[in-house]
Amino acid sequence: MKIARYSYQGAIAFGIVDEHELVVLASDPMFAGFDTTGDRVALADVKLLAPVIPRSKIVAVQQAGAEPVFVLKPNTAVVGPGDAIVLPAASERVEVDGQLAIIIGKIAKNVSVADATGRVFGYTVATVVTATDLAERDTTRAGAFDTFLPFGPVIETDFDDAATPLRGLINDEEFQAVELGDDDSTPTEETVAALVAYASSVFTLLPGDVILAGPMDTAAAVEDGDTVSMSIAGIGTLVNPVVRPA
Amino acid sequence: MKIARYSYQGAIAFGIVDEHELVVLASDPMFAGFDTTGDRVALADVKLLAPVIPRSKIVAVQQAGAEPVFVLKPNTAVVGPGDAIVLPAASERVEVDGQLAIIIGKIAKNVSVADATGRVFGYTVATVVTATDLAERDTTRAGAFDTFLPFGPVIETDFDDAATPLRGLINDEEFQAVELGDDDSTPTEETVAALVAYASSVFTLLPGDVILAGPMDTAAAVEDGDTVSMSIAGIGTLVNPVVRPA
Repeated sequence: MKIARYSYQGAIAFGIVDEHELVVLASDPMFAGFDTTGDRVALADVKLLAPVIPRSKIVAVQQAGAEPVFVLKPNTAVVGPGDAIVLPAASERVEVDGQLAIIIGKIAKNVSVADATGRVFGYTVATVVTATDLAERDTTRAGAFDTFLPFGPVIETDFDDAATPLRGLINDEEFQAVELGDDDSTPTEETVAALVAYASSVFTLLPGDVILAGPMDTAAAVEDGDTVSMSIAGIGTLVNPVVRPA
Repeated sequence: MKIARYSYQGAIAFGIVDEHELVVLASDPMFAGFDTTGDRVALADVKLLAPVIPRSKIVAVQQAGAEPVFVLKPNTAVVGPGDAIVLPAASERVEVDGQLAIIIGKIAKNVSVADATGRVFGYTVATVVTATDLAERDTTRAGAFDTFLPFGPVIETDFDDAATPLRGLINDEEFQAVELGDDDSTPTEETVAALVAYASSVFTLLPGDVILAGPMDTAAAVEDGDTVSMSIAGIGTLVNPVVRPA
């Protein structure tokens, strides 16, 4: 099932994607379940928004492995499909990297690997943006600028993350093409579970928390005027223009 | 004015401290102003809670200076007065450090130093807890465990942070005694403004965001059974027991 968060006629709502329409949900399904209102709205008539705005944590993995190294990102970095990635004045080199965003749906503290997948609400595509020229001095700041974390286009609740192609384009040029799970650095169903379990050993994971999972070291630089398209088969394509304010 | 967040008869509310009583507020004053309900409640009858639970960011300074180095902490680390600091199984050395918590009250993006103080709602005491044996490998994780960020006891909105004593005790032993502003590593009114302005150049600061300001390098180790008391003159004393689960 694909869940969209969208704005329509001035209001923000959630819906289930049904071909070219959205079945309108009564509330945020992560907290209130899947009750529908009986209304439908055409996908073409809405503006899709970031499908989740975390209220507690966005956890990025700096270094993969059995004990991954974490860095947190602020929710003020999150934007949605079509929103601009704004290059900050402080940086001269900004890179983008496609990642799988694991969205927590149920509170999780010290969960086992076996129980971890049951705490996941769904998955979306993340374009992780980093001012790499600032990263050595301050890793947190380098990935924390406003607009540096596009999410979307929708949340897939039934996503099977084994052997799924992830593909990144800058304009028409492919810079990232991996199969999730095809090497040690990309997430599989097993590594997703291990990552959620490990994160839950550090902090309580709350509904809406997001964990970003590899691949690593496939980032590419972007410039003013570029368009970034990040696709995960089974979820969708997230497209964001890049702008440098005058 | 001192603002408390508290639980009383099963409900969470906010109040203005008036000697030994609280003047009950209609809602969270950060978002809804200072309308009162007409009720009063005795301070002795309530349980004080962390006076703020940030919904977006808690920004700690790893390295002070004109361009401070940041690390983010999750809101799941926040606890209130009297709550236990729980030592994690993964660590064998946990240290505590008293800091001034600057609480943002108004949205701030690229604000000037001159405008920065006007975006501050108030100040509280923070006991910043770090698993220092894990910090070299993963700075974020080392400071992100549940219960690692006691706040309280109240927010002082009119705090004058120049030349204010900050004093930390573990049990009856003083390990930290500085005057805020008495050297380059502790916050003054000027450095608070500079810190808020700088942070707002990285990310949009939202009401409820917290920035933690020095002193640096005054931390001390705690063990199971200790009690940590952290005082800032003009704000109050934050007391938390330390426990290691069996």
